[in-house]
Amino acid sequence: MPTSRKLDAVDHVALSVTDIREALDWYSRHFQCEVLYQDDTWALVQVSNIKLALVIPSQHPPHLGFVTPKAADFGSLKLHRDGKRSVYITDPAGNFLELLAAG
Amino acid sequence: MPTSRKLDAVDHVALSVTDIREALDWYSRHFQCEVLYQDDTWALVQVSNIKLALVIPSQHPPHLGFVTPKAADFGSLKLHRDGKRSVYITDPAGNFLELLAAG
Repeated sequence: MPTSRKLDAVDHVALSVTDIREALDWYSRHFQCEVLYQDDTWALVQVSNIKLALVIPSQHPPHLGFVTPKAADFGSLKLHRDGKRSVYITDPAGNFLELLAAG
Repeated sequence: MPTSRKLDAVDHVALSVTDIREALDWYSRHFQCEVLYQDDTWALVQVSNIKLALVIPSQHPPHLGFVTPKAADFGSLKLHRDGKRSVYITDPAGNFLELLAAG
């Protein structure tokens, strides 16, 4: 059972889609969500507990974005336009994870 | 920007892994998380805002599990051992989604 220690959070899940506009239309029609950002290569959608990124495979891999205070232990953090810093790694099975620095 | 309307939630993200024990060991070492369940075919891990399912591809597809009051609109719900009811669908790009009935 969960204890009271502070658990890490998943900031976002990035799914590969073939067409950003089509995907946004579909997710918006079927789920209660809010579109936070969109362009031709990716979009960001808010659901109640996480963000969902819709990405074109040629631009971004599908991945899971964790917030962890240990992000910098995994490699050099890249600064993004929104001020966040992160590094991409893979788990032992090859799943892409983006580790975002906490705070 | 998000409004005050109630947004749907993501219950869990299921990632394909090659070995459940190896994956659990890796995720437990690198993230603050709690193992809720494990057997040889899948495991369930709690992080602060969602659950992470680690699954063997032959048993379960990698997927995103949404909680939505409209789950039954997408097909016949299957009752699981834990009392939850859900249906699997795919989005237009072929991503698997599990829609769990709310409440």
